[in-house]
Amino acid sequence: MMENKVFLSFAFYSTILILKMYVVAIITGQVRLRKKAFANPEDALRNGGLQFYRQDPDVERCRRAHRNDMENIFPFLFLGAVYSLLDPSPTVARIHFLIFCVGRIVHTIAYLLQLRAPTRSVAYSVAQLPCFSMALQILLATTPYWN
Amino acid sequence: MMENKVFLSFAFYSTILILKMYVVAIITGQVRLRKKAFANPEDALRNGGLQFYRQDPDVERCRRAHRNDMENIFPFLFLGAVYSLLDPSPTVARIHFLIFCVGRIVHTIAYLLQLRAPTRSVAYSVAQLPCFSMALQILLATTPYWN
Amino acid sequence: MMENKVFLSFAFYSTILILKMYVVAIITGQVRLRKKAFANPEDALRNGGLQFYRQDPDVERCRRAHRNDMENIFPFLFLGAVYSLLDPSPTVARIHFLIFCVGRIVHTIAYLLQLRAPTRSVAYSVAQLPCFSMALQILLATTPYWN
Repeated sequence: MMENKVFLSFAFYSTILILKMYVVAIITGQVRLRKKAFANPEDALRNGGLQFYRQDPDVERCRRAHRNDMENIFPFLFLGAVYSLLDPSPTVARIHFLIFCVGRIVHTIAYLLQLRAPTRSVAYSVAQLPCFSMALQILLATTPYWN
Repeated sequence: MMENKVFLSFAFYSTILILKMYVVAIITGQVRLRKKAFANPEDALRNGGLQFYRQDPDVERCRRAHRNDMENIFPFLFLGAVYSLLDPSPTVARIHFLIFCVGRIVHTIAYLLQLRAPTRSVAYSVAQLPCFSMALQILLATTPYWN
Repeated sequence: MMENKVFLSFAFYSTILILKMYVVAIITGQVRLRKKAFANPEDALRNGGLQFYRQDPDVERCRRAHRNDMENIFPFLFLGAVYSLLDPSPTVARIHFLIFCVGRIVHTIAYLLQLRAPTRSVAYSVAQLPCFSMALQILLATTPYWN
């Protein structure tokens, strides 16, 4: 598999996106500390008192961005891996991965910086295009096994 | 891997389930627009005003269905892939995948259409059976490496 | 792949962690029943009445633990699989997997038993170390394909 050029390209972009998700998690933690808004009483107690066991709109925004990543990046990790095994054109495959990767990075930036709608939705939709394309190609490739 | 009949079958059912999850995401967006209930102020502003930056029970229901999918379908993507490499009987493997796939589709329908309890819980439990079966088979197959 | 000792070790620890997540899901359901706090009106109706369609802090705690697992264990399933293909030292690889596995189990125990901060955060951070290490090694291994 590590001699499959398409798989290597897929592994590279996927790892970038996982690191991007880790960054969102770190930002969430930083916003919690800065805004003093903790999800657990034991965290609040360690950081000034139970009054900081509370929600905060900025923290919730980070969590929505993170959740949307889970909803979309995790399926990509599966679709991209199987698609890489279908022996696609390396150039076409890279375009798939690149569009998804850029789309998801723009999505995160638009979410966290609260960019004007529909920036975030457009980034989401663009990133879904290669996913649908890969899903359809997988379904076609597995046709002989449909029944 | 693409010559492994079990893996192809697994890839087929998994892709169907990922597409199903994308459908839940699309439905969530449609319900947000119809009920005018947006998760972000910037979305509400674009769709009539800040008063639509609010929660809605129907939207929350879609989100719970989606989250439950993440909790269960994503682990299946891993378990099914490794199980496919264990050289199981193609028929037995297909039964595993099919039960999970049908169970999860029924789960989503029961969730979104608010079918009477315990329809949804039963669908969830049935879908977990092949997952537990695959997990146990993986543990047994990796026994020589337990220490 | 099933002759790759590192992959077998990875498959073992990953399956343990997926089963651990299933246990969190089961605990969540048990706490819902015990505290009579259901996420859906149809579930509440079946369990005593609509007044039990409500949130509960203990249920929310379980759900936060489960969500944190999704945010961290699912990326590990990807990173560990690709890392296993990089032909690492079996001993070094096992140390990566073991640290992650133990870190995540401690994280869950600290979350559910509400252990004093920062037990949970330390477990989370320790478990992230092998993930960052594997991510960096994947990026280095895919260098020739960066452009």
